[in-house]
Amino acid sequence: MQRTHNCGQLTPEHIGQTVTLNGWVQTRRDLGGVLFIDLRDRSGIVQVVFNPAYSGEALQTADKVRSEYVIAVKGEVVKRDPETVNPNLPTGEIEVRITEIDVLNAAKTPPFFIEDGVEVDESLRLKYRYLDLRRPEMHKTLLLRSKAAKIFRDFLDGEGFLDIETPILTKSSPEGARDYLVPSRVHEGEFFALPQSPQIYKQLLMVGGVERYYQIARCFRDEDLRADRQPEFTQVDIETSFLSQEDLLSMMERLMQRLFRETVGVELALPFQRLTYAEAMGKYGSDKPDLRFGLELIEMNDIVAGSGVKVFASVIEKGGEVKCLNAKGCGTWTRKEIDDLGPFAARYGAKGLAWIQVKEGEFRGPIVKFFTEEEIAKVKERTGAEEGDLLLFSADTKKIVADVLGALRLRIGRQLGLIDDSVYKFAWVTDFPLLGYDEDQKRYVAEHHPFTRPREEDIALFDTDPGAIRAQAYDIVLNGYEVGGGSMRIYKRDVQEKMFNAIGLSPEEAQDKFGYLLDAFEYGTPPHGGIAFGFDRLVMLLAGRSNLRETIAFPKTASATDLLMNAPSEVETSQLEQLHIKVARKPVEAK
Amino acid sequence: MQRTHNCGQLTPEHIGQTVTLNGWVQTRRDLGGVLFIDLRDRSGIVQVVFNPAYSGEALQTADKVRSEYVIAVKGEVVKRDPETVNPNLPTGEIEVRITEIDVLNAAKTPPFFIEDGVEVDESLRLKYRYLDLRRPEMHKTLLLRSKAAKIFRDFLDGEGFLDIETPILTKSSPEGARDYLVPSRVHEGEFFALPQSPQIYKQLLMVGGVERYYQIARCFRDEDLRADRQPEFTQVDIETSFLSQEDLLSMMERLMQRLFRETVGVELALPFQRLTYAEAMGKYGSDKPDLRFGLELIEMNDIVAGSGVKVFASVIEKGGEVKCLNAKGCGTWTRKEIDDLGPFAARYGAKGLAWIQVKEGEFRGPIVKFFTEEEIAKVKERTGAEEGDLLLFSADTKKIVADVLGALRLRIGRQLGLIDDSVYKFAWVTDFPLLGYDEDQKRYVAEHHPFTRPREEDIALFDTDPGAIRAQAYDIVLNGYEVGGGSMRIYKRDVQEKMFNAIGLSPEEAQDKFGYLLDAFEYGTPPHGGIAFGFDRLVMLLAGRSNLRETIAFPKTASATDLLMNAPSEVETSQLEQLHIKVARKPVEAK
Repeated sequence: MQRTHNCGQLTPEHIGQTVTLNGWVQTRRDLGGVLFIDLRDRSGIVQVVFNPAYSGEALQTADKVRSEYVIAVKGEVVKRDPETVNPNLPTGEIEVRITEIDVLNAAKTPPFFIEDGVEVDESLRLKYRYLDLRRPEMHKTLLLRSKAAKIFRDFLDGEGFLDIETPILTKSSPEGARDYLVPSRVHEGEFFALPQSPQIYKQLLMVGGVERYYQIARCFRDEDLRADRQPEFTQVDIETSFLSQEDLLSMMERLMQRLFRETVGVELALPFQRLTYAEAMGKYGSDKPDLRFGLELIEMNDIVAGSGVKVFASVIEKGGEVKCLNAKGCGTWTRKEIDDLGPFAARYGAKGLAWIQVKEGEFRGPIVKFFTEEEIAKVKERTGAEEGDLLLFSADTKKIVADVLGALRLRIGRQLGLIDDSVYKFAWVTDFPLLGYDEDQKRYVAEHHPFTRPREEDIALFDTDPGAIRAQAYDIVLNGYEVGGGSMRIYKRDVQEKMFNAIGLSPEEAQDKFGYLLDAFEYGTPPHGGIAFGFDRLVMLLAGRSNLRETIAFPKTASATDLLMNAPSEVETSQLEQLHIKVARKPVEAK
Repeated sequence: MQRTHNCGQLTPEHIGQTVTLNGWVQTRRDLGGVLFIDLRDRSGIVQVVFNPAYSGEALQTADKVRSEYVIAVKGEVVKRDPETVNPNLPTGEIEVRITEIDVLNAAKTPPFFIEDGVEVDESLRLKYRYLDLRRPEMHKTLLLRSKAAKIFRDFLDGEGFLDIETPILTKSSPEGARDYLVPSRVHEGEFFALPQSPQIYKQLLMVGGVERYYQIARCFRDEDLRADRQPEFTQVDIETSFLSQEDLLSMMERLMQRLFRETVGVELALPFQRLTYAEAMGKYGSDKPDLRFGLELIEMNDIVAGSGVKVFASVIEKGGEVKCLNAKGCGTWTRKEIDDLGPFAARYGAKGLAWIQVKEGEFRGPIVKFFTEEEIAKVKERTGAEEGDLLLFSADTKKIVADVLGALRLRIGRQLGLIDDSVYKFAWVTDFPLLGYDEDQKRYVAEHHPFTRPREEDIALFDTDPGAIRAQAYDIVLNGYEVGGGSMRIYKRDVQEKMFNAIGLSPEEAQDKFGYLLDAFEYGTPPHGGIAFGFDRLVMLLAGRSNLRETIAFPKTASATDLLMNAPSEVETSQLEQLHIKVARKPVEAK
């Protein structure tokens, strides 16, 4: 009784054919002694019918099956009566008259219905993931993920990239706080670490002359748990030699174009928009702006510096800034609606939120009285404020202004329906700062990693203004998500030394921390750079889901637990002894 | 100076064109003021020439470069003078007259030559793996591996298999002695384990209705170190539902056919030879026979049971057996040459090795005198012994006879030049025993794993002779290597219970050890089965290498050490504290 056809693919074309189907019982209805079973396999559902008129003993057998039984059936495809055609089912015009059945396996009643849109606690779904995966939407997502991986591979293979596996058992990194460690049985007291990314290996492959490398790589980060992070995640890791940043970026655009064309049937326009980090932060208050709508942040410093709004003037005096959003059409909001924005803005660091409504032809709101006529006119001109608009002001450090207005922009954009969910809006954000000043450590730290290449024309700034150096680093953003990022890497020793010096590493410390890579760099390192795409997130966006767990066959919970397998778990003491470790529990505190 | 062409691809077609090349200096020769550089990139080598007549300042710059410097050069492709054509180089008919050079990076003198066939200690090669990878033969192997992975994927994708990633952080298995463990930061005293294979996950995917799954999966085994094992290794993991063993095997044959066609250009004949386990052991003394040559083991029990060779008779009486190999043409060996086989055979458990030479028309050797004329005639007929042959006899338990003669067969086959290294000889070995009797534990144990399906017609033997049950398990062997293996899995509860009972597990113990899988099996499990290919080994055989390390970009040594990264290594105490473990060193023993 091996299948001859898939359930979901039967059409009127098959009428008159005898087919054998294998699958699961979705539903079973007995109508006056005639048994109708919706039979499901991964291709879809078809109705099979057991009727005393033609099913013989098969009807008695079929009478015993229940939901999720696995059966094999054989019968003839027939046209349904017009009144029983099911327009909601691709196979709805036909049914199969069964003459033979084999019950391959029985099933207990599942803990939830095997159908889309089922409302069930996620932890139950994860515990019974093997049932959850039977739901069509989960299967569709797995299919999409598999297809997306294939497209990445086909494209990169076509561009001459080699698929190379790098080790999972590797060395703990210098900032190894987030490393998962693996004790060694052979080497007492020593540990492997699981890689946070194949970064160093891929750079070594460039030193090794591979020129073009990619890998769909598993990475691991034992970090503070957030709703939408996984302890193990997948990235499409790419590195090239002898290729300019511009050529790499445009190659990646073609890759995205193909990916979206072949998965969701959307034709992306190339090239993608390019924004520098400074532009992205300035206009959208974010380095991963959602560009599906405008509502840009508007500079106000020059207009309001001399105004009577004291908080504006004083912020500007201290080097901060004042910016504003024009929430079109929100001028009709009640005072309460406007005030509700306050606590939201406060979450992003706002100490207050000034506003102006344009109502009945005039500016209204608590701060209006502190402006001169001329200032009002300038504000109006700059913001394009019209009847029914609402201007929202933030005045603070650059960072807080960006955070507050960036968040308000997203909230209001969503509230006003400015975001078209059917649109995929990609952009590159480039020229990230190379270094950031760490107030705690009183020194500069690498924003990306210490092998990121500075822009050629900024190298002189190492001696004068390290914080102003722009990196040859870039992120690729989609609809407000960062879906990938990378950089050109340093490949010249003198630049590398300047970089280490800038982040306060002595040559000895640098050798101690990054010795194997520095050694490698001395033997003829080509110019190289790369990118990594967050594969889970890309699939999530392609699938239109809102949670990474929906894109992973066997995900872990937000507390890094596998509810299906019940992992992690305790192990035998003998296993630990072999690994030369023991559990060191924290002492229970006295109450 | 971004490349316009690859070094190795320049041909007389390009004569007259101006090209820009990027690459490494392979060699540099100064002939009377004219500088010849062999420039290498991953595509190959081309000669570039700096001549005062046309190179200008580029000559001065080029004069400073040394081996492994990274340079970009620009110039015109010209035909070489006939007397300087290099027939050993694909680009040997042309050279490039350089007018511009950019030194992209300098290089120290490498610790070994970057060329094929270099004689250098492997540990040095592993420490400087990034230089080792520059050697053309290493690059060729990486390319082959990448291509092989692509072919697997293309084929499986075409057959409707979904590429699905399963977790690396998973649960320690019931026989977890070989598991790598990973302490959890969040869950004090608990551990993840790295998977020895995705076996359970792939079976759960079948329960989940995926129907066809594959993954090129990293697996981990912390086992006793052998010369040719890696602690992390790669397998192509495949599982299907609703497919018969025969259909799966023939699909896999087509996969192998495509793999070999598209990598090494060899057309494999289908179907592959099929041997039962009993046949393989009987004829070749091995469950992974090298079928490139004959030299089969010959049954002798019936002939020698009554002979005067007492050891033969007594072995047979105790249920053992006597077999023989006819080493054609070795009848001329000296006594010493024959005696040298003794210690070799002893390694496989032989207590002695009886032999007969056919010399000058008669049987000679110490045991001949114990045979009757009639017995000699039968031996002659059975073995086809002719002038110049050497018969080697092993008499012992079935296992020892198989081990001894299996090993002798390979040794003599190689010695006699019977093995054609250009031939790829595949076969399936099927019908492995389901259970083996463990003398220590005085019980049956699963030969494959406890979810392997017995042959339908053997199920009754659970009650009478469990050791005789044949499994629906199969290995795929190539030239004496096992390159893959798998089985149909149990999917019916009553069979699973018989299996657990046979291996001495009570229902409670079974639930405790395999609970999540047993639970899953109750919700409508389809008939399923699969296979896993050892990807590293397959690539090794395709590449004609003799060592798995040659097929892996960054392998570990036989003592599970990464010499490049220096891993494993000690870590900060603070890291261990966060993971709730400490190192428990073995006490140093008093001397």
